[in-house]
Amino acid sequence: MLSSLRPIVAFVAVFLVSATAAFAQTDPLPSWNDGPTKQAIVDFVTRVTEPESGDYVPIKDRIATFDNDGTLWLEQPMYTQLAFALDRVKELAPEHPEWKDQQPFKAVLEGDMKTLAASGEKGIAQLVAATHAGMTPEQFQTIVGDWLATAKDKRFERGYSKLVYQPMLELLSYLRDKGFTTYIVSGGGIEFVRNLSEPVYGIPPAQVVGSSIKTQYEVVDGVPTVMRLAELNFIDDKEGKPIGITEHIGQRPIAAFGNSDGDYQMLDWTTAGKGPRLGLIVHHTDAEREYAYDSDSSVGHLDKALDAAPDKGWIVVDMKNDWKEIFPPQE
Amino acid sequence: MLSSLRPIVAFVAVFLVSATAAFAQTDPLPSWNDGPTKQAIVDFVTRVTEPESGDYVPIKDRIATFDNDGTLWLEQPMYTQLAFALDRVKELAPEHPEWKDQQPFKAVLEGDMKTLAASGEKGIAQLVAATHAGMTPEQFQTIVGDWLATAKDKRFERGYSKLVYQPMLELLSYLRDKGFTTYIVSGGGIEFVRNLSEPVYGIPPAQVVGSSIKTQYEVVDGVPTVMRLAELNFIDDKEGKPIGITEHIGQRPIAAFGNSDGDYQMLDWTTAGKGPRLGLIVHHTDAEREYAYDSDSSVGHLDKALDAAPDKGWIVVDMKNDWKEIFPPQE
Repeated sequence: MLSSLRPIVAFVAVFLVSATAAFAQTDPLPSWNDGPTKQAIVDFVTRVTEPESGDYVPIKDRIATFDNDGTLWLEQPMYTQLAFALDRVKELAPEHPEWKDQQPFKAVLEGDMKTLAASGEKGIAQLVAATHAGMTPEQFQTIVGDWLATAKDKRFERGYSKLVYQPMLELLSYLRDKGFTTYIVSGGGIEFVRNLSEPVYGIPPAQVVGSSIKTQYEVVDGVPTVMRLAELNFIDDKEGKPIGITEHIGQRPIAAFGNSDGDYQMLDWTTAGKGPRLGLIVHHTDAEREYAYDSDSSVGHLDKALDAAPDKGWIVVDMKNDWKEIFPPQE
Repeated sequence: MLSSLRPIVAFVAVFLVSATAAFAQTDPLPSWNDGPTKQAIVDFVTRVTEPESGDYVPIKDRIATFDNDGTLWLEQPMYTQLAFALDRVKELAPEHPEWKDQQPFKAVLEGDMKTLAASGEKGIAQLVAATHAGMTPEQFQTIVGDWLATAKDKRFERGYSKLVYQPMLELLSYLRDKGFTTYIVSGGGIEFVRNLSEPVYGIPPAQVVGSSIKTQYEVVDGVPTVMRLAELNFIDDKEGKPIGITEHIGQRPIAAFGNSDGDYQMLDWTTAGKGPRLGLIVHHTDAEREYAYDSDSSVGHLDKALDAAPDKGWIVVDMKNDWKEIFPPQE
């Protein structure tokens, strides 16, 4: 009689294997450890996408906004855009012999980060003017693209576009699969971020909101040209994030993702809206695999938003415990 | 022998009927008369979408920008947004008894368009401050939506959202079917146009570029709020159009559609790009079915762009002869 059970056993075995495989295939967030953080994300997405949930949100209103530095990619030991500006100063230095004696360029060329930091907003403005202006957006894109193709982070010995967070890449895809439109809302320069948004995050240039310098339309030798000027236009940080979202997207998001106090207002405004809302903070707690920092760091300073999270109902990702992987696998 | 041919004749007849029906069904621009204008549009779209054409453009670069007033909907005898502002002043007048003696409000209340026009930019700024500011974008959307639902154009006795150009609605759909992303780039207010862009044109709020007033982020009684201020932020007209496109879209369009000199720079910058480009001007030549105007009109002033069209290779739509229908059918 036992032998007559064999086909049934085989069937059950095949069924179990298939079911496991199917489950593994359909876990949309494989780099997230199972637990309350992952569950809260999946619960929110399920609630807003299931018509019978009572919290259903139509596709046109499924707007999700992501900070970039420290939320989607590495921001330590310095913002990647600052690393770009410093490298660019070094590259342009032969054309500017006067920089040897002129701050903040002298400090950059001598690697004197303390003096550079002391140059403050004025110094940063001079760096931006020298490295980001006086060209068309297309020319700037070429310069940034060439730099990103070769520049490497010293600690991880990888290009910056490989130092993006694998769990967040999965989250972006998961949300888009569920009908969300995903936006980057970055304190960084809008044109800088646009260089990588599509190939790295699958986010087209038009879905990037960021800080910007002014541009001017000119006809140069009969050629219509947009020129980047050495003049600040908009700071997309803190109060600027809800303003930038209003201007660019024209809708309040239902989900917002950040990692620092610069994201506080975006998180607060997003989650204060009616209906189901999701606010999430990436807390850098993993000195071994990445970095551990919050209220003591000037880059990615996280204090007020972390304190407010429990009351506001924002999810706090504990990078060390919630993330199975930090970066995409090495190729 | 003849009877044996019958099945073949029947087959051929059925084939011809089917083929005709299929052709009728697939004409993407039924409200455009056959002729060189329609042919030039179809030729361009065919060239950029057929992989073997040599002029193929990948989907991510198929960006098309449309002016709104006079290009997608009626702009005579006055811009619809101005009609809104005038109606709004009348509605708010009981709360502002001082307006009876105060310009430009006095002129609006007395229907004195000459004095209103003489109040110039300062007068318009006061109208905008009184009717467009001091509220959240959501509150403004409600006010505009309520007005659009009931206000009617006097000549055509139809609501403004029914006074859109049927041939242009077909063109928008045709381009989207062919993988284009369609944007509105309007001199009008971005939030005003966003009210109708999705239901009327199928264009989501984030794909609207326009003029704007400043907004401010405030926490009012603990509620995070974006407030519209009585201060100009950006004029999306003339040189402003390439600037607004750069800021919002981050890519140069491959096709641009306008109807006035306010669109000149957008058309010029768009068609000056490398590869296949399309520039198109809607020329209002139909006083009987709509209006006939160009260089003599202050609303929709068309002079320089019309003169430049032949040299620049821009298509000029002769509304009277190229369009079979002007507006969507009456319901």
